[in-house]
Amino acid sequence: MITGKNYIGNTLSAKGNTTYKTFNPKTNTANETVFTEATSEEIQEAVDLASEAFKIFRTISGTKKAAFLNTIADEILALDNTLVQTYMSETGLPEGRAKGERGRTIGQLRTFAKLVEEGSWVEARIDPAQPDRTPNPRVDLRKMSVPIGPIVVFGASNFPLAYSTAGGDTASALASGCPVVVKSHPMHAGTGELVASAIQKAAEKTGMPNGVFSNLNSSGIEVGQELVKHPKVKGVGFTGSIRGGRALLDLAAKRKEPIPVFAEMGSINPVVLLPKALETKAVSWAKTYASSITLGTGQFCTNPGLILGLKSDGLTNFIGTLAEEIVQIKPQCMLHPNIHAVYSNNKAKAQSQKNVETKATIDTAVAENYAQQTVATVDGKTFLENATLHEEVFGPFSLVVQCENVAELETILANLEGQLTGTIISEENEASNYNGVVKTLSDRVGRIIFNGVPTGVEVVPSMLHGGPYPASTDSRFTAVGRDSIKRWVRPFSYQDWPNELLPDELKNENPLNILRLVNDQETKEAL
Amino acid sequence: MITGKNYIGNTLSAKGNTTYKTFNPKTNTANETVFTEATSEEIQEAVDLASEAFKIFRTISGTKKAAFLNTIADEILALDNTLVQTYMSETGLPEGRAKGERGRTIGQLRTFAKLVEEGSWVEARIDPAQPDRTPNPRVDLRKMSVPIGPIVVFGASNFPLAYSTAGGDTASALASGCPVVVKSHPMHAGTGELVASAIQKAAEKTGMPNGVFSNLNSSGIEVGQELVKHPKVKGVGFTGSIRGGRALLDLAAKRKEPIPVFAEMGSINPVVLLPKALETKAVSWAKTYASSITLGTGQFCTNPGLILGLKSDGLTNFIGTLAEEIVQIKPQCMLHPNIHAVYSNNKAKAQSQKNVETKATIDTAVAENYAQQTVATVDGKTFLENATLHEEVFGPFSLVVQCENVAELETILANLEGQLTGTIISEENEASNYNGVVKTLSDRVGRIIFNGVPTGVEVVPSMLHGGPYPASTDSRFTAVGRDSIKRWVRPFSYQDWPNELLPDELKNENPLNILRLVNDQETKEAL
Repeated sequence: MITGKNYIGNTLSAKGNTTYKTFNPKTNTANETVFTEATSEEIQEAVDLASEAFKIFRTISGTKKAAFLNTIADEILALDNTLVQTYMSETGLPEGRAKGERGRTIGQLRTFAKLVEEGSWVEARIDPAQPDRTPNPRVDLRKMSVPIGPIVVFGASNFPLAYSTAGGDTASALASGCPVVVKSHPMHAGTGELVASAIQKAAEKTGMPNGVFSNLNSSGIEVGQELVKHPKVKGVGFTGSIRGGRALLDLAAKRKEPIPVFAEMGSINPVVLLPKALETKAVSWAKTYASSITLGTGQFCTNPGLILGLKSDGLTNFIGTLAEEIVQIKPQCMLHPNIHAVYSNNKAKAQSQKNVETKATIDTAVAENYAQQTVATVDGKTFLENATLHEEVFGPFSLVVQCENVAELETILANLEGQLTGTIISEENEASNYNGVVKTLSDRVGRIIFNGVPTGVEVVPSMLHGGPYPASTDSRFTAVGRDSIKRWVRPFSYQDWPNELLPDELKNENPLNILRLVNDQETKEAL
Repeated sequence: MITGKNYIGNTLSAKGNTTYKTFNPKTNTANETVFTEATSEEIQEAVDLASEAFKIFRTISGTKKAAFLNTIADEILALDNTLVQTYMSETGLPEGRAKGERGRTIGQLRTFAKLVEEGSWVEARIDPAQPDRTPNPRVDLRKMSVPIGPIVVFGASNFPLAYSTAGGDTASALASGCPVVVKSHPMHAGTGELVASAIQKAAEKTGMPNGVFSNLNSSGIEVGQELVKHPKVKGVGFTGSIRGGRALLDLAAKRKEPIPVFAEMGSINPVVLLPKALETKAVSWAKTYASSITLGTGQFCTNPGLILGLKSDGLTNFIGTLAEEIVQIKPQCMLHPNIHAVYSNNKAKAQSQKNVETKATIDTAVAENYAQQTVATVDGKTFLENATLHEEVFGPFSLVVQCENVAELETILANLEGQLTGTIISEENEASNYNGVVKTLSDRVGRIIFNGVPTGVEVVPSMLHGGPYPASTDSRFTAVGRDSIKRWVRPFSYQDWPNELLPDELKNENPLNILRLVNDQETKEAL
C-alpha cells in the first residue's frame, strides 16, 4: 500500500535517483519501503498542477470544500490499523498517541469543514452606494477574503499527522481555497504517503480538480528550497526548528515577489513559579511538571524548558521533588536517531555551561534512541548573561533558574526571545501582586497560562499557537484553530460590481445566510 | 509656529547639523523654514520613549484612545488656515484639495475613534472550560487582539495629510494601542510639523503617555533606515515607490527579529475596455478617463496608467477622443521639482520604446514643475515583451494597449505585476462573456471596479487598498479602512486566567458589551 513514490496530483511518480528509508527508533532498524525523492521536474509538475487547480478550486463553494475535508477525514479513518502501525514504526510513539493525534487531525479537518460550510469566515463587508452624497456620490463597495494561491506545507517531525500531510496547515489552506503541495517529512514518509493517498481519494470522490494536493518526498533540504523559491507558490507553512524556519523565511524574502511564510519554530516556554505557590504547593507542582517535561519524550514545541522562581525554601523544595520525580518516569524512545543525537548534544552543551548544576538525570543505560530526561539549575545572573542557556533543548530537559529577586526575574523575562507560551503558577490572589512579571511575560509570548502546563494545545477558536519571533515568523497569525485560515487569504474588494456577477457571499440577497458587516453593522439580513 | 525641529515625544529638539527647506513648486522657490534632520541620538530617544510609552498606552481603554483620536482631529481643524496655506506652499496643490484631504484625515481619525470606543474590533473569542470532557478536561481559553509595539510610519509625498503624519497608518496604529514614530516626508516637513504639534497637544490634553508620538525630520534615507533597523521598532507603514518600499522590506527581513512591513507601493491600475462598451460609449469613457488620468496631476497611486482594449473602430475612437480631451485640460503643477523630473524621465523612457506612439501631449511651454500630460499607444505583443512598459510613470501619463484578441489580452493581464486596482468597462450583460478576462484581472489586483475609474479610495470597511506584490508588500492587509488596524495587532490567548485579572474585553460579564465569539457563536451576552 505504501509505494515510496510521490503524489503529483493523482499520479504516483518516482523519476529520481535519490532514495531513502524511514527508521524505527524502537527497534533501531530501518523500515522496508524505499522512498524516492522528488526531482526538480516533479516539483515543477506539482506546482504547475496546483496553479492550474487553483483556477477552479478557488471558486468552489464552501459546501463542496466541506465535503472534501470531511471525506479526507473519513478516508484517514479508513486507513485504520495500517496508518496506526506505520505511524508507530516511523516514530517510536505508542498506539495511544497515534490514535490521539489521528483524532486531533480528524477533528481539525471537520472543524474547518464546518467553518467553510457555514461561510461567515470570509469577513464579508458591504458598504452600499450613496448616490446622493455630496460633494461626490459614494460608490458601492463589497469585500471578502479570497485564497492567495498554491501553498507549500512542510511536514513536522514531531506531529506526523496533526502538523504534517493533512495537519492544521493543510486543512486550513484547503479550507481557504488554496491548493497544497506537501514537502513530506523524511522521518515519517510512509505515514505521509498513506495520508496523501487518503487526500487523493477524497479529492477524486468529491470532484476536486487534479493537483489540488500533491505530496513530495525529500530526504534533504533541496526540495523544500526549490518549492519556496517557485514563482507560482504563494505561501508557506512550516513547523520545526528556528534554523529551518528562518532559512525558509529568508529565501521567501529574497524572491522577486516575496511571499508570506508562517513558521512555528522553537520555544522554551517559560514557567514562573510565584513564591506563595511554592510555599504551599511545591511538591504537587513539581510532580505535575515532571510529567509535562517528559510528555511525548519532551518532543513538543510547548515543552516547558525553562522554569523560573525566586530563591527560597519553596523553590529548593520544588527542585528537590522535581529531581526525584523525573527519574521515576520510564525513559521513552525519541522520534529518530538524529533527533536523539541533537537532544544529547544540546543537553550536554547546556549542562556544561558555567554554574549549571545537573539536579537529576537518568544515568543508567537506556536502549538506543531512548532519552535520558534531565533537570538542571542555574542562578539568574548566569542565565541572563549566557545566551546558550536560552536555546531550546528539544526533548525531556528543563532548566530551573533561581532568581535573586523580582527585579532579576523581570529582567530575565524581558530579555527572553519570543515564546509560544508563558505560564504563571500562583496562589489565589497572588498574581495580582506581580503585575510587572505578568506584563513582561505577556509581552514575550503568544499564550499565557494560569496554574497549568504549556503542553496540550486545544483546537478551539480562542487558541493562539504562535507568538513573537522566533516562536513564529509572524506573531499576527496562529497555526492552530479556525483563525489559522487567515494566513492563506487576502481581502478583495468589488466596486460597483453587478449583483449577479458577485460571489454569493456578497450578493444583495445573502443567499448563503452568512454574517456580514453591512453599513458597519453585523447582520445576516439581505440588502 | 513652524520651528523646523523634531518632536521627540513632547519635546522640540534639533541636535543635528543637516538642514533643509521645503519647496513651493508653484512659485518655484524654497520656503523659509529651515528643518533640522534628526540625529541618531534623537532617533534613539524617540524610540526609547515610544517603547516606554507602549507599556502604558497598550493598557489604555478604548474610550480614552477614542478621546485621543478625536482630539487629534479637533486640533488639526484648529490649525485652520495655517495648515491649509502651509500644505499649499509645500505641494503646489490647490486649496480645495488641501481641505478635501484634511476632511479625509479627520474622517479617518474619527472612524478609528468610533471603532475602538465600540471595542468589538479586538475579535474576542471565548471557549469556556469543559471540566467533564473525556478523556481530558478542556481548559478555559480566551483570545483577543493586542498591539505589537512601536510603529514607524513614513510620510507619503503625495498625501501630506491623509497618508502622512496623522494619516491612515498613524491613526490605525494609535487606535490599536501602538505608539508611532513618524519619519516626516522632507517635501512637506512644515505640514508634518504642524500636524505633529496637533497630535502632541491632543496627547497632553487627553493624558496620553509621553512618547506615544514622535515626529522626526529627514532629508535622505538614513533616518528611515535607522528606524526600521531599531530593535524596539515592531512594525512599519510606508506609502511610496517600489524601490523605497522594497528596500525597507529587505532591511526588516534581515533584522535578527524580522518585523512586518506594510508598504503600499507602485501600481499602474489596468483598465480593460470591453468591445461593446467601446462600440457604444467610447467617447464618454474617453472623456471620463482624460479627467481621471490628470486628476491631482496624476499623482495618485490609483492613477490609471494602463488602458487595454481589443483592436477595433471603437478603440480607435476611444484613443482619438482621449487624445483630444487630454490636451484640453490645463496643465497642473507637480508636488516637487524632483517628482517632476522623475515624471519627465520615466515618461520619455516609455515614449521612446519601440512601437510606442505618442497620441497626445502638451507640447507648448508650461511653467516650471508643471506636468505635460501625455497619452501613448502600443500593440499588445510589444507590451507583453517589454517590461519597461509595465513600470509606473508617476504623473499624468497613460498607455493604451491595442490587443489583437481576447487571448492576447488575457496573457497580458496574467503577466502584469500585482496592482492596487483593476477596472472593467462593460456594457450591460457584456462582462459575463469575459469570465477569463475578469478572473485573470482579479488575480492581479486588490480591488476590481465596474464601469468607473480607479482614482478615489473610499474610507469604508469594505475598501481594500493594497494588493498582490508589488502593489503592497503583504496582500493580506489593507492600508485604508477599519481593517487596516489589523496590521498592528497580534492575537493573544489567556488559558485558565482568573476572571478578575482578564482584560475587560474577555471578562465573563462582558462589561464593554462587545460582540464576541463564545463557543463558536457571535454574541454580546455575558457568560
